[in-house]
Amino acid sequence: MEVDGVPYRSIWLADDGWSVDIIDQTRLPHEFRVEKLTTWQQAAHAISAMLVRGAPLIGATAAYGICLGLRKKADNDHLKTISEKLIATRPTAVNLRWAIRAMQDLLLPLPENARLAAAYEKAAQICDEDAAINSAIGDHGLEVFKRIWEAKGKTGRLNILTHCNAGWLATVDWGTALSPIYKAHNAGIPVHVWVDETRPRNQGAHLTCWELGKHGVDHTLIVDNAGGHLMQHGLVDLCITGTDRTTAAGGVCNKIGTYLKALAARDNNVPFYVALPGPTIDWEIDNGVKDIPIEVRGSHEVDYIQGLNGEGEIAGVRILPSSSRSANYAFDVTPARLVTGLITERGVSEASKTGLAKLYQR
Amino acid sequence: MEVDGVPYRSIWLADDGWSVDIIDQTRLPHEFRVEKLTTWQQAAHAISAMLVRGAPLIGATAAYGICLGLRKKADNDHLKTISEKLIATRPTAVNLRWAIRAMQDLLLPLPENARLAAAYEKAAQICDEDAAINSAIGDHGLEVFKRIWEAKGKTGRLNILTHCNAGWLATVDWGTALSPIYKAHNAGIPVHVWVDETRPRNQGAHLTCWELGKHGVDHTLIVDNAGGHLMQHGLVDLCITGTDRTTAAGGVCNKIGTYLKALAARDNNVPFYVALPGPTIDWEIDNGVKDIPIEVRGSHEVDYIQGLNGEGEIAGVRILPSSSRSANYAFDVTPARLVTGLITERGVSEASKTGLAKLYQR
Repeated sequence: MEVDGVPYRSIWLADDGWSVDIIDQTRLPHEFRVEKLTTWQQAAHAISAMLVRGAPLIGATAAYGICLGLRKKADNDHLKTISEKLIATRPTAVNLRWAIRAMQDLLLPLPENARLAAAYEKAAQICDEDAAINSAIGDHGLEVFKRIWEAKGKTGRLNILTHCNAGWLATVDWGTALSPIYKAHNAGIPVHVWVDETRPRNQGAHLTCWELGKHGVDHTLIVDNAGGHLMQHGLVDLCITGTDRTTAAGGVCNKIGTYLKALAARDNNVPFYVALPGPTIDWEIDNGVKDIPIEVRGSHEVDYIQGLNGEGEIAGVRILPSSSRSANYAFDVTPARLVTGLITERGVSEASKTGLAKLYQR
Repeated sequence: MEVDGVPYRSIWLADDGWSVDIIDQTRLPHEFRVEKLTTWQQAAHAISAMLVRGAPLIGATAAYGICLGLRKKADNDHLKTISEKLIATRPTAVNLRWAIRAMQDLLLPLPENARLAAAYEKAAQICDEDAAINSAIGDHGLEVFKRIWEAKGKTGRLNILTHCNAGWLATVDWGTALSPIYKAHNAGIPVHVWVDETRPRNQGAHLTCWELGKHGVDHTLIVDNAGGHLMQHGLVDLCITGTDRTTAAGGVCNKIGTYLKALAARDNNVPFYVALPGPTIDWEIDNGVKDIPIEVRGSHEVDYIQGLNGEGEIAGVRILPSSSRSANYAFDVTPARLVTGLITERGVSEASKTGLAKLYQR
């Protein structure tokens, strides 16, 4: 998407034809800094230190990490070593494993001298495919948005609430939940986005606000507490979020707090959509609340908040008294009964076993 | 309640017998600073700059503000002037108006030379009555807590979720929602409190955590997004919050985000109680969502977060990109249908017109 009128992806091959450029997302929204990756170790660090985040982008970065690693040596041992090290950067990231496995499956059967070129080609393909999938999600979502906009009589603005960041920064391009928003904006629908701050890491305030602002989409930051009130007062026409893992029955494991917004949407008859690419569906799991283990992350994410200090530097402040402790549950599960529909690259389905199975022919 | 073993109220007459001491709540939790008020202007500033907050404490501070003002002059004009100035510090605070009116009703009929002593006596009475009301709320709430604790088989801990700060810092002593928690703790029930951070002003992280910690009550800070997940997993035995305004039908206008927790409680069969003193009931209003206007506060409260910086100083950081804007809805309304019961100084009632009318014999 655009940054002040210039088209960007979240990761791209540099003009030198071999090094890889990413946006350092830990500096956003206060500084737009492009980082160059020249070694697999730098790619691993970019993932583990969350310079890049979001399942598809992590996968793409790992794929390019393999490329950078193969520039030194292309033998099996080295390929396996760097694969393992890259996987270890975010052990629970499904896309990361998937991308590394796709690279290995392609590269291991090849002669060593053919591996580097094939790796770069495959990494580029992984990026292009992700952008295409997300663009398709956007197209299908746009149809949903159009219907809601028409039902509203095309008056005022189309008010959309989103949680966390499921935008182009989390993917290679377009994003998932934000993709239909960009498509709607580009199509001339006067969208306005309520952006949940998304504590503890504030991806809404830091990333979604930045993304939308840079592409010119009207938006307002709200605290995570505010969405229910807005829905009670008719100020939200629909909600849309991403998902980290979707059950075969249509339940959604997404950033902590998603469930609360889905409850408010249901209580106020506001449609609640979830946008996802097929690979986030876990066909083995039906009951997400029961069967998806929820990551408990370090409590410093709760205790400290990062922002711009009075000197214009990025700094953290501690909000908790030193005598207290905190807990940091990273995700929650929204049961399928609260989800109006799932917007995928293959179309829109109801959030149910039947709906998903029909779309993915299982 | 206690601060490291020493009993405190949130406002008290100093040892000199005339000046008034308060705790500067803007410095909490990082610094425990007692401020001395010696003029009515200082009292007004303490209210407007939120050194003191919480309806009962604002009322008590205003009452003492009248006392301090009368030390200079006790004529009707002066009394009316300072009354108006004090009311103007927080124009929507009901308790503030009530306290000032109570002082005026008492003082205006008195001869000027009798007013000062009477004012101090009345201010002390307002404080004592608030503490007594809150203690009674705690006693009634304790009975509720005991029943839930017994139903749980007295195993593990009694896990309570609260939002914002309805503790002794918001009142003169005991607090409203936290009063039964202190009573339960003092009675030996092993309570553990999940404290919602309560963005944007973080009263949970800053004040509730501090209060509970200083009195020795076990607690854990969570982000506002986390409560639903905890309830889905049986980690919350009950919720309890305060209320700024209660409708005659039992609806509750409280800090933004309360409604979302009430929805989650209902969805998971977790009891959701609200603690309140009778005067917060607005007998004129039935439909709170429709008829209670919600204050929209300055957006700097959303854009900036205060905490302790790396140098150990209290500082703010900006979380929002400079190109974005925010909205700051301060309260929301939780419909009575989501409230399990109202805990008042007169006992516990169901959240309904009948329940409240019975308790208050209207």
